[in-house]
Amino acid sequence: MTIAVDAMGGDYAPRVVVRGAVKAAAEFGQPVVLVGDQAAIEAELGKMKRYDPSRVSIRHSSAVVGMDESPSHALRHKTDTSIDAAWDEVREGRAEAVVSCGHSGATMAFGLRAVGRLPGVDRPALAAIWPTPFGPVVMADVGANVDCSGEQLFQFGVMSHVFARLALEIESPAVGLINIGREDSKGNDRLRRAFRLFTESGLPFVGNVEGRDVFSGLAQVVICDGFVGNVLLKFAEGLDLSRRRILDRLAKRSGSSRRGYLLMKPALRRHRKFFDYAEYGGAPLLGLGGLGMVCHGASTAKAVKNAVGLAAVSLRQRVVDHLRDGLKPLAHLLTNKKRASRPLEAV
Amino acid sequence: MTIAVDAMGGDYAPRVVVRGAVKAAAEFGQPVVLVGDQAAIEAELGKMKRYDPSRVSIRHSSAVVGMDESPSHALRHKTDTSIDAAWDEVREGRAEAVVSCGHSGATMAFGLRAVGRLPGVDRPALAAIWPTPFGPVVMADVGANVDCSGEQLFQFGVMSHVFARLALEIESPAVGLINIGREDSKGNDRLRRAFRLFTESGLPFVGNVEGRDVFSGLAQVVICDGFVGNVLLKFAEGLDLSRRRILDRLAKRSGSSRRGYLLMKPALRRHRKFFDYAEYGGAPLLGLGGLGMVCHGASTAKAVKNAVGLAAVSLRQRVVDHLRDGLKPLAHLLTNKKRASRPLEAV
Repeated sequence: MTIAVDAMGGDYAPRVVVRGAVKAAAEFGQPVVLVGDQAAIEAELGKMKRYDPSRVSIRHSSAVVGMDESPSHALRHKTDTSIDAAWDEVREGRAEAVVSCGHSGATMAFGLRAVGRLPGVDRPALAAIWPTPFGPVVMADVGANVDCSGEQLFQFGVMSHVFARLALEIESPAVGLINIGREDSKGNDRLRRAFRLFTESGLPFVGNVEGRDVFSGLAQVVICDGFVGNVLLKFAEGLDLSRRRILDRLAKRSGSSRRGYLLMKPALRRHRKFFDYAEYGGAPLLGLGGLGMVCHGASTAKAVKNAVGLAAVSLRQRVVDHLRDGLKPLAHLLTNKKRASRPLEAV
Repeated sequence: MTIAVDAMGGDYAPRVVVRGAVKAAAEFGQPVVLVGDQAAIEAELGKMKRYDPSRVSIRHSSAVVGMDESPSHALRHKTDTSIDAAWDEVREGRAEAVVSCGHSGATMAFGLRAVGRLPGVDRPALAAIWPTPFGPVVMADVGANVDCSGEQLFQFGVMSHVFARLALEIESPAVGLINIGREDSKGNDRLRRAFRLFTESGLPFVGNVEGRDVFSGLAQVVICDGFVGNVLLKFAEGLDLSRRRILDRLAKRSGSSRRGYLLMKPALRRHRKFFDYAEYGGAPLLGLGGLGMVCHGASTAKAVKNAVGLAAVSLRQRVVDHLRDGLKPLAHLLTNKKRASRPLEAV
């Protein structure tokens, strides 16, 4: 049960990726194959105190898909990229999951080509995990699909529910549909269609939820289109940073608040850690024929380690098999064949 | 230059509304007419130590539009509601603006009937003001329109730019279009159409911005459809509350962090105040033939006071006249007559 790690993807690759993957191998006993430029990977491994060579191997690949490259262009014109080779490990049965801090659209595009979609899935979804006072909340989609049909939103919900239940071990996670009010009729036709599908599905559906309910404990799975999810993800990043900046500024204004700030430093650090994306490390790609885990481009080694850990748990729980099984009995609900979907450049 | 205040709208009406309006009359020398049940308003006024009767008058109305009522239903079937009577004051020339903590959709619907739209405006927008480390940022739309055409998004930008410049006194505010990446081609056809219109308009347009840029100082006006804006507004509320909850919990874990927390209380209070919606109090309705200011349903008296203050500044700066003038030279850009717009129930 090896995990292929795209060693060349992300802002600090290959350094932090190699470090994170090696740590995961040590801490979780998880075999990893580092995919990318062999010399660069070996140089990074050489800098590490020790690692277990029985759990860390290398697959060489010569090229990289850049963060600003179009995934569809890379798909057509680039060969032997690290993300392609990583998915190839899965296709060839030498690995069972891919973890990448590189371009999320490329991770999805090459994954689709290598392992395809699960039956009943129009487009895979990227799901983010929000830490909240009431435990983790899974949100999908967060950037893979700009305009989503009601059917797609419903599929995201079915898949996120499976992931939340198995990989995050939330017992019977409640599903909510993000809308601008809790009444059934809110939103547009796509949202009302999704609402009906959820209602008929037998899933534990709590109906429409509002932006604030991501943190209110009302639902453990919240569904939105990738435009909304992506804006929310980055908005939260900006909001948290702005809150911290102003608190820093205010705390320096008086001697007593400066003292208080120092005394609170450990609590503030724990606070930041609580809400840190790195605690989960990765956002799962749901709906592919294999398991993909996308990390923030600026991931730390810890984030990479935790993403590999989350992928390992997902493999142990056989998430992909359960996604396939979970989608099957709901196929009869998806009668509408018209699909609104936007391609990968959106990511 | 009287401001009509819907005394019956909001969760704590008429008490906090009357208090806030009377405070505004005293602090800003702003004449207000309190619209609603005369006996209830007089009872509240009676509880106040003193107020200047030359600046506070009452217009009686017998009914209220409830927070859960459909605005279009109220428009057709309800008579003599406080929000209707408030707009009537503007239509009859006895007041120049309406402030309401009631149903925002009803405030817009009755406003549209009373004073209409400005030429070149398909649908008015609700604009929120975000406090950020780089000063206030105006976001529109935040809930008046679910699906918006490129033309509408562009109109929101033109109007928000005027409002930011005059009412918030931001010199040449930069306009950004919320999208899932900064590249020109991101998003869907509607966003690309808006992008082109902004580019051709001569406005200080910085292009596409991401969720995090609401707080990055990149733009002082950020434009999105009302679905995204409304979700963001409520999401921020939930996020802030969840951050506070966890900090409270963590700060109580050790003696030193408890002491630090106490020492930091004043700074934390200022922090909360910095980001408090009540500091601006109201969200302007832009694009009506008169000035409307919508407040949070749970507004405090201070929020109401500040909303009346913001309305007073907007009147002094002749915001509505400048909106009319600002839209006129851009009419030639709006050749596409197809409109995507959703009715008021969306709010």
